[in-house]
Amino acid sequence: MMKSESTAIDVPESSAVPKGKASLMAATRDAKGGYNKGFAIFDFILRLGAIVCALAAASTMGTSDESLPFFNQFFQFQASYDDIPTFQFFVIAMAMIAGYLVLSLPFSIVSIVRPHAAGPRILLLIFDTVSLALNTAAAAAAADIVYLAHNGNSTTNWFAICQQFGDFCRKVSGAVVASFASAVVFMLLVIMSGLALRRQ
Amino acid sequence: MMKSESTAIDVPESSAVPKGKASLMAATRDAKGGYNKGFAIFDFILRLGAIVCALAAASTMGTSDESLPFFNQFFQFQASYDDIPTFQFFVIAMAMIAGYLVLSLPFSIVSIVRPHAAGPRILLLIFDTVSLALNTAAAAAAADIVYLAHNGNSTTNWFAICQQFGDFCRKVSGAVVASFASAVVFMLLVIMSGLALRRQ
Repeated sequence: MMKSESTAIDVPESSAVPKGKASLMAATRDAKGGYNKGFAIFDFILRLGAIVCALAAASTMGTSDESLPFFNQFFQFQASYDDIPTFQFFVIAMAMIAGYLVLSLPFSIVSIVRPHAAGPRILLLIFDTVSLALNTAAAAAAADIVYLAHNGNSTTNWFAICQQFGDFCRKVSGAVVASFASAVVFMLLVIMSGLALRRQ
Repeated sequence: MMKSESTAIDVPESSAVPKGKASLMAATRDAKGGYNKGFAIFDFILRLGAIVCALAAASTMGTSDESLPFFNQFFQFQASYDDIPTFQFFVIAMAMIAGYLVLSLPFSIVSIVRPHAAGPRILLLIFDTVSLALNTAAAAAAADIVYLAHNGNSTTNWFAICQQFGDFCRKVSGAVVASFASAVVFMLLVIMSGLALRRQ
């Protein structure tokens, strides 16, 4: 009884304090590493989701094409994404973003394997920020044209074309929604990179 | 001689090691604090620049308004930003961003005064990311309409209106350029927040 109390309160060896400190620091480090590993795994899953969204957006837009069933001798009424420069930009931008996301997967895996390495995270943060801007720009510009195609604008005499090209408009709207989803994922990725860098 | 050697090699007091370690840690901490302070000051200056850009964009767009010198009994030919929903969104979004930037200045000052505080930086990182997305969306959508106003689109029968409304188009284009400048500043702010968080 007396002996156990003395060992509990007194610390006779001088090496006991550093050892205790070291193990405490290691424990804190492990806990932080655990958080970081969690962030890195979630980061990887989000990237997979963003790849799906970006590919869906690019391919839906890239295959949007509608010919009307009536045509005359000289002219076939047809709407395709490459008639509108904004939609061309959209396809190129979303394809680039899908490519970047695939290339970023190895760096995300490095973050899972080595939760304390700051290099890959900073690299990903920089490119994610640029991709967020590109993705949002493409999505907003395309959404703008889709809005115009649905509603037209009377002041500038731009007429709505969705009455004629209904399927085209539906496909294009779907692509815009998918690209906004991937933009939201990029926002999460950027904020999570910041949080993970903080914990190091 | 013998004594000095013994003090150099041996460490008789148990408190010597912690003291040396503590001063080394303090020195490293000061160096990191210096970097962080530099980042924080640069952050503050960038925010001031972004406020100017955002206010310029919102006010230029908000005052863009052109009446043509000819009119008939029933109709005055006039173009104004509030005829086009995208430009209304642009004005509101850029005004919101300018307001957010003004509100963010105190947090930036806290980062200068306390370079090691992670809280304000993470708060700024999150809101900067959201603002980057909003700013880019507004800029890209408005740029899209400006392109359409300059060039028109033959497939959809949307005609260019800049031949008639030259001054209107010039003002609107200027606003778009200013908003892209503030979007670039937001990208720098997000990346710098990540770097500053890393150094803590």
